[in-house]
Amino acid sequence: MTAAEIRETIIRTVLENGGHMASSLGAVELSIALAKVFDPMADRIVWDVGHQSYAWKLLTGRADDFGTLRRLGGLSGFPNPAESKADAAVAGHAGVALSVAQGLAFARDGMGRRENVVAVIGDGAMANGTCLEALDNCAVVGAKVIVVLNDNRMSISKSTGALSRFLGRVIAGVRYNRIKAAAEAAGHRMGFTFMRGAYHRAESFIKGIFLGSAFFERCGLRYIGPVDGHDPQALEAALSVAKRDKRSVLVHVVTVKGRGYAPAEADPVKWHGVPPRRDPAAPPQSGRAWSDVAGETLCDLAARDPRVCAITAAMREGTGLSAFAGKFPDRFHDVGIAEGHMVAFAAGLAAGGMRPFVAVYSTFLQRAIDQVMHDVCIARLPVVFCIDRAGAVGEDGATHQGIYDFAMLKCIPNLTIVQPADAADLRAAMEEAMLRDGPTAIRYPRGRAPGKIAPLSRPGARLAIWTPGDWLAKANEVAGKIGATVVHARSLKPFDAGLLAEQRASGMKIVSIENGCVAGGFGESIGADMKFGWPDEFVPHGPVESLERKFGLDADAIAAAILKKYPAGA
Amino acid sequence: MTAAEIRETIIRTVLENGGHMASSLGAVELSIALAKVFDPMADRIVWDVGHQSYAWKLLTGRADDFGTLRRLGGLSGFPNPAESKADAAVAGHAGVALSVAQGLAFARDGMGRRENVVAVIGDGAMANGTCLEALDNCAVVGAKVIVVLNDNRMSISKSTGALSRFLGRVIAGVRYNRIKAAAEAAGHRMGFTFMRGAYHRAESFIKGIFLGSAFFERCGLRYIGPVDGHDPQALEAALSVAKRDKRSVLVHVVTVKGRGYAPAEADPVKWHGVPPRRDPAAPPQSGRAWSDVAGETLCDLAARDPRVCAITAAMREGTGLSAFAGKFPDRFHDVGIAEGHMVAFAAGLAAGGMRPFVAVYSTFLQRAIDQVMHDVCIARLPVVFCIDRAGAVGEDGATHQGIYDFAMLKCIPNLTIVQPADAADLRAAMEEAMLRDGPTAIRYPRGRAPGKIAPLSRPGARLAIWTPGDWLAKANEVAGKIGATVVHARSLKPFDAGLLAEQRASGMKIVSIENGCVAGGFGESIGADMKFGWPDEFVPHGPVESLERKFGLDADAIAAAILKKYPAGA
Repeated sequence: MTAAEIRETIIRTVLENGGHMASSLGAVELSIALAKVFDPMADRIVWDVGHQSYAWKLLTGRADDFGTLRRLGGLSGFPNPAESKADAAVAGHAGVALSVAQGLAFARDGMGRRENVVAVIGDGAMANGTCLEALDNCAVVGAKVIVVLNDNRMSISKSTGALSRFLGRVIAGVRYNRIKAAAEAAGHRMGFTFMRGAYHRAESFIKGIFLGSAFFERCGLRYIGPVDGHDPQALEAALSVAKRDKRSVLVHVVTVKGRGYAPAEADPVKWHGVPPRRDPAAPPQSGRAWSDVAGETLCDLAARDPRVCAITAAMREGTGLSAFAGKFPDRFHDVGIAEGHMVAFAAGLAAGGMRPFVAVYSTFLQRAIDQVMHDVCIARLPVVFCIDRAGAVGEDGATHQGIYDFAMLKCIPNLTIVQPADAADLRAAMEEAMLRDGPTAIRYPRGRAPGKIAPLSRPGARLAIWTPGDWLAKANEVAGKIGATVVHARSLKPFDAGLLAEQRASGMKIVSIENGCVAGGFGESIGADMKFGWPDEFVPHGPVESLERKFGLDADAIAAAILKKYPAGA
Repeated sequence: MTAAEIRETIIRTVLENGGHMASSLGAVELSIALAKVFDPMADRIVWDVGHQSYAWKLLTGRADDFGTLRRLGGLSGFPNPAESKADAAVAGHAGVALSVAQGLAFARDGMGRRENVVAVIGDGAMANGTCLEALDNCAVVGAKVIVVLNDNRMSISKSTGALSRFLGRVIAGVRYNRIKAAAEAAGHRMGFTFMRGAYHRAESFIKGIFLGSAFFERCGLRYIGPVDGHDPQALEAALSVAKRDKRSVLVHVVTVKGRGYAPAEADPVKWHGVPPRRDPAAPPQSGRAWSDVAGETLCDLAARDPRVCAITAAMREGTGLSAFAGKFPDRFHDVGIAEGHMVAFAAGLAAGGMRPFVAVYSTFLQRAIDQVMHDVCIARLPVVFCIDRAGAVGEDGATHQGIYDFAMLKCIPNLTIVQPADAADLRAAMEEAMLRDGPTAIRYPRGRAPGKIAPLSRPGARLAIWTPGDWLAKANEVAGKIGATVVHARSLKPFDAGLLAEQRASGMKIVSIENGCVAGGFGESIGADMKFGWPDEFVPHGPVESLERKFGLDADAIAAAILKKYPAGA
């Protein structure tokens, strides 16, 4: 496929199915060059955060299936070894590719094989702690890896930090590097080794100018670049040099996010992730996004109280903080893809007397569980975690389902965990958290918050359904079908042990329905007689409603399952 | 107190109570200088990994209580704000101090206060991902912090990695810096600002030589050093300069681990942590350390199978890998204090065809939960986690108790979790893991493995005690007292659901006894009627036996509690 064909396919498919538009468009020429210089099936190309990898999928045998992208049973939106041998590793969370690549390279050498190992890392992911740890270890491990730094000058929103700044300085020398890549390629082709000697001397002098390159060289990576990431010849030349070199090499490629699609080039943040096209016949969506309710509430709290500040790890737009960042720039911190730092930084802010709100996706909070415990909860600091995308997220699939945070957090002492049921309830939960003399986690799902909703109460019922909040409507529906009563378990930890004991004492059966994993979930906390939630297997990509049906978590299936076990249950 | 008095007190106390000897001895002069230049109660000194902080405790009002170090109800072995205002933050896990300090500094500026904020960071901790993320963000946050890099050229065992190497280069210029610190101090004292101008020009030229300092300067930290960390005048001068400067500053202090105690200077690794003195009247300890059994088994596996390799994050000695490192240096990796990288690297090794064993303390695995899920378990890679120090660890206290790993891991699909009961059983569990086509976690506690032990089986009992393994002897004792039968839940996940259903069907009551937290623990997994384990509060420091009694987890207390609920229980 040509670059134009690839772009046309990506744009058409993403506008229909939803997906990651801008990053993938920026990596089209890079993917073509990688597929040409390396053997996709024998060599191991590790994409760091796979939302750059659509072109790679199209080039490695998945063009015919590309229309199924992110659909139930279709292609994943991220690299997945179970989908193709061309995907060397799972890649939904940023920052791990270099670690994985070092492992692959060391194993290759140990087993006496000879394949190439390449890690393709975005500039945002490069500043993640795990990636920096891997850079620090690169020279020690020694096994040859090729690192392609796909530098589009912005992470998901924008890159911040020292590393990003000195990469910027390096890029200032781009003209020099075009010449260099061409010279290297020519030198190799013509066997002008004597020229190469002189060239390398000049090179090392010029390199001295670039502090960024010195950083990588000290990590045991020969630096090549910056290379124009939309110039096929330059890319091929640089990757060929990297392939032939016996040492580990970093190829610094500069790309434009959204390249080739004018709207995405103009506003790559907006076009980072695109929702699936809505069926025009579908009823209009009502209610406001949970993220927006959280962001707006935070603005109101900040206006009233100068201690309130907001922190995010490269998720300003996703977590609804754009307005806050505009209104209170001095109290807004985007730390980049650095979740561990984010939480420890919030601990410091709280210890210093501020009231930090950490806005984070459930799946990414998994990367800072230790900081939540060690830095926030032991000292009982009043940090508020706004856990967005808690629950199944749908099309992003196994790497992104927000169904594990409660199970991981519930063992942490001193942490209050709540889950509101509607927009007003989220606002109330955030207000209450401000008054709490200790840490709070507030969970809410992807999508839109319903209008005012209350649990269906049926005095005298023999069966109680306990539910954390976002599936309250579903729980009410189930209860309506089977004649049960519903308890909104707004506080997941501590839960209402008094009410539970009362219901138990009266002989009631307890059922839990939660948008989270059953293993370690809320149902286990309350010792429910029947537990409904996500099963003990990775939940794949697909529309949330389809996933719910697939796993028997729609209201009909739940009601039927309960009636089967308790025929006269209600 | 003088440096000599402090050293004498530390040595005497640690030989009696146990504790962290070498690191604290290395930081005596540094602590004195910090206490002199700063106000310990008003300024905020954040120690990164508190095992350097004994002198600080002695200097800040805790000399009289120092004999209670690490004892139940006594002083903690780590900084703890609940113990003294001089401890700015909880500090048991490495790498977070700079993040916390940035938060404190930003809050100070935001609230209009003026205290100094200092982070004291070891060279090993500096290479941790969270600290590197914090360095990357330092210039962005902007609020002034003082970083003291306490560089003893070794982390807990030895520092590896690129950062460590270029710090080494920096230290090579130590003579220059002695002069520099003196000049700065003199310049400030005498107001020779004109001299300072010339001096700074010379300084920036000389600094160009030191790539390490350039690294910090780019992170927005003015570099001062290296300073001899045992020279009181040089330390005071450097810290005074750092205090007066309006910019953020890094003071690079070079210390000798174990300084002033010949055995510890000669072998700082051995003297990193010292066990409490044993009562001479106590019976001799029998059995071998769990860690040593794991290490020896790993050597045997590696001798048979060239795919076997071992990985640790700065815990070679602690996890029993010294022999392995000596025999199989090519298959041993110490990645430094970089747990996230460690796990992702292991994923790469496994994907490349090797059989990596990750040896890690329970409490530190908390820092890589996401990598366990995202990089290892989704792709079902055969990584084996040898989770050492699982269970209460005693004297290290709240930050180190290994009682949360199971609760955090049990929600992760595809992961088999087992807990052997004795040395032979640990060996068997490791052999089985080699044959498993997917990831395995093997938990075992601190201390010595018992000889062959079997669960007390009593057919016809009306009460079954399920226990994961290391408390099997205790469970047997309880069962003996109350006439119950015991199930060794060797496989925690998946557990033996068939046996559980059978016991339930026969009307038996189920009791769980586990050396782990109850919230999210094994008792919840099996829906036990009574659950014994660590409660939902942070478990403080003290001897394990004392903690067990305090929390009602000794055999007598458990038996009494069961009989109270089930008087005719057995």
